[in-house]
Amino acid sequence: MLSKNKIKYIQSLSRKKIRDTEKAFLVEGDKMVTEALESSLTVETLCATTDFLRANRRIVSGDTEVIEATADEIRKASLLQSPQNALAIVSMPEIGFDLGVLNDKLSLALDFIQDPGNLGTIIRLADWFGIKHVICSENTVDCFNPKVIQASMGAIFRVQMHYINLPAVLGEASQSGIPIFGAFLEGENIYKQPLSSSGILVMGNEGNGISTEVGALVSDKVHIPSFAAEGSESLNVSMATAICLSEFRRRQL
Amino acid sequence: MLSKNKIKYIQSLSRKKIRDTEKAFLVEGDKMVTEALESSLTVETLCATTDFLRANRRIVSGDTEVIEATADEIRKASLLQSPQNALAIVSMPEIGFDLGVLNDKLSLALDFIQDPGNLGTIIRLADWFGIKHVICSENTVDCFNPKVIQASMGAIFRVQMHYINLPAVLGEASQSGIPIFGAFLEGENIYKQPLSSSGILVMGNEGNGISTEVGALVSDKVHIPSFAAEGSESLNVSMATAICLSEFRRRQL
Repeated sequence: MLSKNKIKYIQSLSRKKIRDTEKAFLVEGDKMVTEALESSLTVETLCATTDFLRANRRIVSGDTEVIEATADEIRKASLLQSPQNALAIVSMPEIGFDLGVLNDKLSLALDFIQDPGNLGTIIRLADWFGIKHVICSENTVDCFNPKVIQASMGAIFRVQMHYINLPAVLGEASQSGIPIFGAFLEGENIYKQPLSSSGILVMGNEGNGISTEVGALVSDKVHIPSFAAEGSESLNVSMATAICLSEFRRRQL
Repeated sequence: MLSKNKIKYIQSLSRKKIRDTEKAFLVEGDKMVTEALESSLTVETLCATTDFLRANRRIVSGDTEVIEATADEIRKASLLQSPQNALAIVSMPEIGFDLGVLNDKLSLALDFIQDPGNLGTIIRLADWFGIKHVICSENTVDCFNPKVIQASMGAIFRVQMHYINLPAVLGEASQSGIPIFGAFLEGENIYKQPLSSSGILVMGNEGNGISTEVGALVSDKVHIPSFAAEGSESLNVSMATAICLSEFRRRQL
């Protein structure tokens, strides 16, 4: 049974302040919860229907608090519009950041991404394109925001997210010789530009693009050309990320 | 002033049946309404604040019914969570479909896309990549659905959308020698596959991909390879569309 206090606690995890204090976040939905149970992360509490528990018994760790609940109780606790049969409280992974993780591979840097749906989609793309580390400016939306988690479709369990002082880290990366690519409206045609198989790709804010401070650290400005006859709209940042990552990875084939 | 009846009518346009009877759809938000006014489409009714009307006087056609309204009245009529200073009722463009429009260019075909956000994003991508015609299976979500309109960010005013019997049209296209590409999980690596500068690219349903009937008409099955070490999630259909269109267009450069 799901107590009123537990429901209150679950719902409180929609707030960043509470997540940061508790060092925990909420995962909802059968598929996402299954992925959380199978991931390397620690599931503190699993709250699920009898059927879900029976089907997934083998992947539940002995250290996890298991609460059997009715679909109705889960609905009461849920932040989703269409609640399912399971939700989980997961410990935030404690990953320190070391500049060395950016060596010899392609990583992504996000400069003030505000929309949770965009961030979730970008994490999903990072996972697809084999990006292991995403470094985010401190003003980028929290990756443990429930909307980001849901939009990431489980990729959040595989991609390492680092919230760091972005200009400082990019400055150090630049000094250690790591190429820094950035998507700009006035950059060079990405399809024709040399792209390395390692480095950092910076994507900027939805409305304003890459900030001046971060932009100054970019060594290679790239741009996705429009093929429209008339002046077309901009691409949104998750679309632009999809196209840039695709182009970087293609070159490695 | 915005009458109660007008508000009722505006809101009724959230329903496909009413839109089809009235042959009209709703456009909301300052930027989108400005684009509608500047487009080749007919704006039947413009309902906006005094300030909006003053700023945009020059682009309002003499045939448009103009209703000056307060922000509060617009809020009452609006389907948006954050209403702005203008909304417009726009006539559906009457575009007949002729197979000839698919000749000598790249077009997009959508097989049962269900999510309005995905369709809007795909229309925006089509616009960016200079796709003039999108043919949709009859069970694809209506492109005049207000959520599609908003997600398209004005691209709906530039891209021609056709709801047709998809297997029949693709069958005829195939017979007339137009290559038909389709995104499949088991297709050939799109980065290594020959891609022509004209043809039709088919994207399938979010959950089930391209239907068997449509799949049988695809001449070239393509696939976006994952670069993840572990078995990663799938891409969603709008991301996959972004990557495929990017790859088709890159080859033309």
